[in-house]
Amino acid sequence: MAAELSELLGPGKVSIREADLEVHAADKWYAKSLPDLVVFAESTKDVSKTLGYASEHGIPVTTRGAGIGYVGGCVPVEGGIVLSLARMKRIIEINPADGVAVVEPGVITVELQKAARALGWDYPPDPASLKECSIGGNIATNAGGPRCLKYGVTRSYVLGLEVVLADGRVMRCGGRVHKNKTGFDLCGLFTGSEGMLGIVTEITLRLIPKPPARAMLAAVFPDFPAAAAAVQAILNRGHLPSALEITDSFTLAAARKRLGEQKLPPGEAHLIVEIDGRPAAVTSEIEEIRALLEELGALRADLAADEAACEEIWQMRREFSYSLRDTGLTKLNEDIVVPRSKLVELVEFARRMEEDTGIPVACFGHAGDGNIHTNLMVAGFEDPVTREKAEHALDQLFAWVLDHGGAITGEHGVGLAKKPWIRQALGEVSFDVHRSLKDALDPQGILNPGKFLD
Amino acid sequence: MAAELSELLGPGKVSIREADLEVHAADKWYAKSLPDLVVFAESTKDVSKTLGYASEHGIPVTTRGAGIGYVGGCVPVEGGIVLSLARMKRIIEINPADGVAVVEPGVITVELQKAARALGWDYPPDPASLKECSIGGNIATNAGGPRCLKYGVTRSYVLGLEVVLADGRVMRCGGRVHKNKTGFDLCGLFTGSEGMLGIVTEITLRLIPKPPARAMLAAVFPDFPAAAAAVQAILNRGHLPSALEITDSFTLAAARKRLGEQKLPPGEAHLIVEIDGRPAAVTSEIEEIRALLEELGALRADLAADEAACEEIWQMRREFSYSLRDTGLTKLNEDIVVPRSKLVELVEFARRMEEDTGIPVACFGHAGDGNIHTNLMVAGFEDPVTREKAEHALDQLFAWVLDHGGAITGEHGVGLAKKPWIRQALGEVSFDVHRSLKDALDPQGILNPGKFLD
Repeated sequence: MAAELSELLGPGKVSIREADLEVHAADKWYAKSLPDLVVFAESTKDVSKTLGYASEHGIPVTTRGAGIGYVGGCVPVEGGIVLSLARMKRIIEINPADGVAVVEPGVITVELQKAARALGWDYPPDPASLKECSIGGNIATNAGGPRCLKYGVTRSYVLGLEVVLADGRVMRCGGRVHKNKTGFDLCGLFTGSEGMLGIVTEITLRLIPKPPARAMLAAVFPDFPAAAAAVQAILNRGHLPSALEITDSFTLAAARKRLGEQKLPPGEAHLIVEIDGRPAAVTSEIEEIRALLEELGALRADLAADEAACEEIWQMRREFSYSLRDTGLTKLNEDIVVPRSKLVELVEFARRMEEDTGIPVACFGHAGDGNIHTNLMVAGFEDPVTREKAEHALDQLFAWVLDHGGAITGEHGVGLAKKPWIRQALGEVSFDVHRSLKDALDPQGILNPGKFLD
Repeated sequence: MAAELSELLGPGKVSIREADLEVHAADKWYAKSLPDLVVFAESTKDVSKTLGYASEHGIPVTTRGAGIGYVGGCVPVEGGIVLSLARMKRIIEINPADGVAVVEPGVITVELQKAARALGWDYPPDPASLKECSIGGNIATNAGGPRCLKYGVTRSYVLGLEVVLADGRVMRCGGRVHKNKTGFDLCGLFTGSEGMLGIVTEITLRLIPKPPARAMLAAVFPDFPAAAAAVQAILNRGHLPSALEITDSFTLAAARKRLGEQKLPPGEAHLIVEIDGRPAAVTSEIEEIRALLEELGALRADLAADEAACEEIWQMRREFSYSLRDTGLTKLNEDIVVPRSKLVELVEFARRMEEDTGIPVACFGHAGDGNIHTNLMVAGFEDPVTREKAEHALDQLFAWVLDHGGAITGEHGVGLAKKPWIRQALGEVSFDVHRSLKDALDPQGILNPGKFLD
């Protein structure tokens, strides 16, 4: 197979080196499975030839971007070919006059953001891993991030795609226009399809004029319900922040150990508010919100009025994650979403679950859209008994989330991690529809097999 | 058939009255075809039963909302059942705490907007027909409008759907959460599917905090290129207006006849800019833009600083359409989209086409997203020779648009009007993919048959 593919693609694009197979066996989740070989595609033609070959021979193809997904989405569980798009990393065009960027899938998200900002434009989606993840991976999982509250997820920026279908045919959908009702929403269908319907080889993305200013507040509240009430009050007063991040007491305690009491004074909940827009507008709006937070019982609300101060707050926010790692426990990071009115109930449930199972639970995340990262902090995860206990706790969590109108994944995708719960989450009819669509576009089932529809 | 369906659905829901058949034979486009009967569904169960019956007997079902589409999308070209959702018009819930509205498909768009605004929240999509069109129709065509530049089209607001499939099964996708990566983007697939994949019976929509203030500028420029350059300059300076509407000289001349020279002083192009946000922010930003427009050669820029003045400008903008009707000519309103950098080229092409064909062309619309309504103003459209000439002119227009990276429809949909050009617009591979998806979800082809995939 390697010889035939090398012949087909030309030299230097196919590897069966053990080190390469190792690297391409896993993402950031814990599952691992070696592929038979890795193809490093350098063009749409390479992808098309590889899929033509794979469909002819019925070989599984698992596509891989930067490989930093959190759900095992690019783990080649049935072996075969891992098709790496990492070499397809050209920013083909940043075009302010059309308000678009055209990129290959291997472009690292932050590189696109930098290139756009250098011209006074912006690509808003900002997954936490934006310095490592690729646009192709963002498309596969329809990645989100804090700013999606105001600006929408990856899908909101996908104007056009070039997609290689399972049989190697190359399709284009959408284009470099900002509105398009030509047929069905194929851009939407392929965005978030986790490599199971086709392989995206070129992306036309919408850019927006970069808001020239931003400002932030970092506030501490006596308890979580008070912080959650502030989230509602901010929105109810007509503000639409570019980020609204909440953090619970468990996370804060861990963060205090790392950052010191000075940065995080006493209080059981933390809230970050970011406003962006024109400079004068931002200054007055952030003051309005500060007054509102004080009125609502914030113990402290630190203002970040310039770029550097804002970055400091975001840096602190990122430290929250590291603080949880400092605990030495295995962090099962579940990107669940609840209806925004259920934030407090979710955290109360997490506390009860903690008592029942003995597994600490840390909640923090995007409060504005109800997307709260709920982290089960597991000691001794390698032990099968512990692992079973953790999985049972996840069962409880997801059952509660679904019972309360929530979603089991907001931005990481299903992959392997959420596969056990997908039928329950979708319902039987929707699951059947998924299968029909999969069969229509990949009748042999060679694209990322072994994932949530198998 | 009528008797059997009446039996199945209960009294008062099935009609074969000629007046009813007449009303349900057409939308705002000129095609017309009588159905065999009309079903007035009052619940999801009614829709499900009707589709169960239709699929069992292989009867065409054409779904209808408010019936004011512009492309013949709900014309029952193969007869059978017209399934009206007009009676399903309950606003089930407006829930600010979750930031959602739950509605039935027959709700008139403006009614939802009013209900949301009464609580200080907003549903931004604003198709020109929002006082007559229904949310279900907006979903079918993924409707847009002026504010979509800043706020996105209908799709950006669809969080959850209840859909009745061709065989009568009821499916739910998405939900009342603001982020959701559970499986494929089925909400996106059904939004814009023009009644060909399933029938939407309940919709959960995202609401946003209503921006408390807005202001507008109505500016006249010496020529169209100057107005188009202003569009680019506004965006390049980091402004993201909630609307940016451009109008060409033909439309202005017609409007002057109706409105008088006072409202529309000399100048060959007109530009409307709307800014929304916090009151202080809006005031300062609109002044920045006014200064910019003057710097860029605007002959006049009238400021509307309050709600009443803004409404007056929008009223004037609506009069532009009526002015074209005043000409007594048949208006073929084509909602094409071009990459934003091609606005001037489009209008130049329209002028050349006008010279070549003798058919006047009026261009105006959503400049920010390149969605320019291009109206062929035809005298004596009833005459077959004239009609052929007009269709030939449309051929030229769409060929030019596709050659220049544009789209043949931005917000009206394909329906019957754009059917002759859809293969060319999609390309063969994408067309095949459309067919595969259609076959997967509607294997008998009973949903809105005779439209763009047949």
